[in-house]
Amino acid sequence: MGELYDRLTAYGKGDAYPFHMPGHKRDGKRFCFQNPFSFDITEIDGFDDLHHPSGILRDAMDRAASVYGSEKSYFLVNGSSGGILAAVSACVRRGGKLLTARNCHKSVYHGIFLRGLRPVYLCPPPVSGWGTAGAVPPSAVEAALSAEPDIEAVLITSPTYEGICSDIKEIARICHERKIPLLVDGAHGAHLAYRGEDSAFPPSALEQGADLVIESLHKTLPSLTQTAVLHKRSGLIREDVLEWYLQVYQSSSPSYVLMASMDSCISYMAGPEGRADMERYERRLTELRAFAGGLVHIRLLEGEGCDISKLVLKADRMGGREFYDLLRTEYRLQPEMCTETYVILMTAPGDREEGFIRLKRALGEIDGRLGAEERRDRKNVGSWSGVPVRFPAPQAARTLSQMDGAPLEACPLSSCAGKISGEFAYIYPPGIPLLAPGELVTEEILSILFRYREEGLEVRGPAEKDSLRVLAEERPF
Amino acid sequence: MGELYDRLTAYGKGDAYPFHMPGHKRDGKRFCFQNPFSFDITEIDGFDDLHHPSGILRDAMDRAASVYGSEKSYFLVNGSSGGILAAVSACVRRGGKLLTARNCHKSVYHGIFLRGLRPVYLCPPPVSGWGTAGAVPPSAVEAALSAEPDIEAVLITSPTYEGICSDIKEIARICHERKIPLLVDGAHGAHLAYRGEDSAFPPSALEQGADLVIESLHKTLPSLTQTAVLHKRSGLIREDVLEWYLQVYQSSSPSYVLMASMDSCISYMAGPEGRADMERYERRLTELRAFAGGLVHIRLLEGEGCDISKLVLKADRMGGREFYDLLRTEYRLQPEMCTETYVILMTAPGDREEGFIRLKRALGEIDGRLGAEERRDRKNVGSWSGVPVRFPAPQAARTLSQMDGAPLEACPLSSCAGKISGEFAYIYPPGIPLLAPGELVTEEILSILFRYREEGLEVRGPAEKDSLRVLAEERPF
Repeated sequence: MGELYDRLTAYGKGDAYPFHMPGHKRDGKRFCFQNPFSFDITEIDGFDDLHHPSGILRDAMDRAASVYGSEKSYFLVNGSSGGILAAVSACVRRGGKLLTARNCHKSVYHGIFLRGLRPVYLCPPPVSGWGTAGAVPPSAVEAALSAEPDIEAVLITSPTYEGICSDIKEIARICHERKIPLLVDGAHGAHLAYRGEDSAFPPSALEQGADLVIESLHKTLPSLTQTAVLHKRSGLIREDVLEWYLQVYQSSSPSYVLMASMDSCISYMAGPEGRADMERYERRLTELRAFAGGLVHIRLLEGEGCDISKLVLKADRMGGREFYDLLRTEYRLQPEMCTETYVILMTAPGDREEGFIRLKRALGEIDGRLGAEERRDRKNVGSWSGVPVRFPAPQAARTLSQMDGAPLEACPLSSCAGKISGEFAYIYPPGIPLLAPGELVTEEILSILFRYREEGLEVRGPAEKDSLRVLAEERPF
Repeated sequence: MGELYDRLTAYGKGDAYPFHMPGHKRDGKRFCFQNPFSFDITEIDGFDDLHHPSGILRDAMDRAASVYGSEKSYFLVNGSSGGILAAVSACVRRGGKLLTARNCHKSVYHGIFLRGLRPVYLCPPPVSGWGTAGAVPPSAVEAALSAEPDIEAVLITSPTYEGICSDIKEIARICHERKIPLLVDGAHGAHLAYRGEDSAFPPSALEQGADLVIESLHKTLPSLTQTAVLHKRSGLIREDVLEWYLQVYQSSSPSYVLMASMDSCISYMAGPEGRADMERYERRLTELRAFAGGLVHIRLLEGEGCDISKLVLKADRMGGREFYDLLRTEYRLQPEMCTETYVILMTAPGDREEGFIRLKRALGEIDGRLGAEERRDRKNVGSWSGVPVRFPAPQAARTLSQMDGAPLEACPLSSCAGKISGEFAYIYPPGIPLLAPGELVTEEILSILFRYREEGLEVRGPAEKDSLRVLAEERPF
C-alpha cells in the first residue's frame, strides 16, 4: 500500500517481543478488527457526533462511565494530550495559578502556555538509588496550597512512566478541603480500574477521589494508539466548559476506527475475557517480579504503591543503553525505553505467556553472565549508575506565555549559562523538562545536559544539537 | 468486539451507497489494510517520532512534499482542525488581527479564542438562488487590508463544503504585496492536486500561491477519517513556530495506523492507479453533471471555478430534508447532508461506477415524478426554497476571548434579542456560525434560527434546545 505501511506490517511479522506500548501488543489474533477502510465512516445519520453525542456514541461513553464509575466519561481521539489540554483549560482561568508536579507531561506545559497560566511546580523527591521522580508528598501539596491560596487546581501524574503512584486519596482530601479540583494524568494507569479484589495493583486515581482523570487506553489496554478517555467525577468542575475545550482541542472529524477501538476495549476489559486476562496477568507479573527480586546483578524498581505492571530494571556495571541493546538484539525483546541507568519494559494484560518466558530466561542469563564475567574495559559503564537524576528547581525569569513571540537567538550550549531559555530541554520518554521556555539556564542544568549527551542519550527540545535558542539580548546600536 | 464496532461493520455490509465522507468509500477491496491491531505501534527504535522526525516519518512527509510541490508537508493526526489551530497560532501574534471569511470552520474560531485574536470578518456574498456563501472577492480582501493595515494574516476556505473556490491566485498576490501570509483551509480540496492537464477541476490552493494550505485527506481521498496534511510554501512563516504549535495541538502518541494511511493515500494517488482513478472520475463526473444539467425539476449548483466533485442539488417544490430522505430511503443513496433547500452528495476518486449509475437513475426518476405529479399538500415544501441564506454581519460586543469565563445564563430563544450571546449557533455541516460568543443577538438572527427549526434542521451550539446562554446581566441586589 505504501512504504510506511509496508515497514509497519513487516515489523509486525518480526520475532521481536514487544515490551512496549501499545498494550494490545499487536496480538491480531486476539484483538481483531477488519480492514479499517471497510468500517471507517463519518457523522452520517444514525452514527452520532462525538462533540454533540446523543445516540450511539452517547451510549458508548455512558457504558464507559458505568464501567469506570465516573459521572461522565469522554472518548479522546487526540490522545491523553488533548484531554490534558482540555482539563487544564477548563479548571484554571486564563492567567490563573496551577499547582503541578514538575514531572508532568509536556501537554501540561502546553496548557500553561496556551492559557497564560502561572504554574507553581512541585519537585517530587527522587527515588533513592534510581534517580527517577518519586511520589508527590501530600504534605508538599498542602504546603504549596497554604503558601499560595489563589491556586485554582492541582495536577499530578500518577502512575508515572515508571509506575510510581502518589497518594491520590490524601491529596484529593487536601484539595477538596479547599474546594480545589484534583486533576490526575493517569495516562499510564488505565488498567488499574480492572484490578480484582485484594489485588497487588494499586487503586485507580478515580477510585481514590480525583476529580478529573485522563487515561490512555492504548498504553496498557488493548486499544489502538492515540485513544484515551477522560473521566469526570466532581462537583467542582463546570461540565459545559470542559466540553467546550474538548471540542476546541479535538478534530471535528473524529475517527470511528479509534472510537470503535475504545468501546471494544472497555467492553472487553469489563467482560469475562478481560477479567480472566487481568487475573492471569497479575499472576504472571507477581511470579516474574519474585524471580527478578532474586537476581543478584539485576535490580527491579519496587516500592509501596508502585504499579507492578512496569518492569524498571537496571544491571550492575551496565549503562541503561547497553542493557537495552542487549535485550533488543540478543534476546529480541524490545523494551519501551532506557535512561542512562535503567530500562523500562512495559507489560499489559494483552501480553502473551511467551513474552514472560522469554524475558525470564533473558534476565536469568544476563544475571548469570554478569556474575561470571569480570567486566573490565566496558566503555559504557555509566559513571552515573546509581546517581539520582535530579530535577533542579526551575528558576522562571519569564512565564511561558511571556515567551510567546519573543525574539530568540541560537547560543552554543557551552555559553548558555545565565541566559533565559527559549526552548524546552528534556529526554523523551519520559519527557520531563530540565528547562522550559522562560527559565534560567544554570550551570547545574548545563552539566546535566552534557552528561546526558555523553551517555549517548538524545536531548530533545533544542532545534539544534549543540546549541540552545535563548532570549535574544538587546544590543545597543 | 464491541457494540459500536458491530454497528459500524453492519453498516458497512448494508446496501446504501455512500455519497458522503470519507473519500475511500469503505471500498475495502481496493483500499486494504490488515487488522489495524497487527501493525499499530509506537515510537520505538526505527520508527521515528512525528514531532521530531528524522527517519521513516521524515521520509514519508518528504515524499508528500515532493508530490504536492510544497517546501514542507506535515502529517496531521488531529484532522484539519489541529492544522488550522496551528496555522492560525503560528501566523498571528497573541491579540493580533486575523482577516477571515465568516464561513470558516469552527476551528478558526477556536484559534481566535485561544489566542485572544481580534478577528476581522469578510462576509462572502451568497450565491444567487442557492443561499450558500460564495467566493471571497479579492477586492474585499484588498479593501479590508487597506482599512486595517495591522492585519497579520488572511484565512480563506477554498473550496468550501459546497465546492466553491475563491480566486486564491489574486488573493495571494494582494496578501504578498503587503508581506502577509495567506492561509487556506482546503480541507475539501485534497484531490485537486491530482488533477491532470486541461482538467475541469480547479487548481489547488498551493499551486495558486497560498502560503499554508490545510487539506483533509479523508474527505475526498482514500485515507482514514481524521487524517490531513498541512503544506507550507512561504518565506513569510517561521517554521520553528509552526512546528511548535503542531506539537501543542496534536497528541504525543500519534497513531501509526492513521499515518500509514496518509502515506499510502499519497503514494496511491501519485502513482498510476491514482492517475487512472482521477481520469475515470473526472469523466464520470462530467457525464453526470451534463445529465443533471438536463433535468427539468432538479438543479445542480454550477459556476466558474467550482470544484466539480461536489454535487449540490435541489428539487422543485421539495425541501432539502425531503429530498435527502427520498434519496436515502427509497434509493439507498446516503447523501452527505442537507440544508433547508438542497442536498450535498460528496463524490471522490474512490467512488465506484455503481454509485454513479444508481444516482443517475434516481435523479432521472425523481425528476420525472416531479414533472408528472401535482404536488399539492406537501407539508415540507420549504417556503425558503430559493431564498438565500444570508449571513448577517456579526456585531461583536465582546471579543471571543473576553467571553472566556464570563458568567452566562440561559435565556429563552424568544427573549434573546438584544442580549450578548455566550454560545455559537450554527448548522452543522457546514458549521458556519450565525452567532459567536460575544456577539449581539439581533432580531434578524433570531428569525433565521426560528426558520431553521421550523424546517426541522438542528441548530447546534446552544446547549439547550429552546434557549441560548447569554452573558448574565448584572442585577441590582
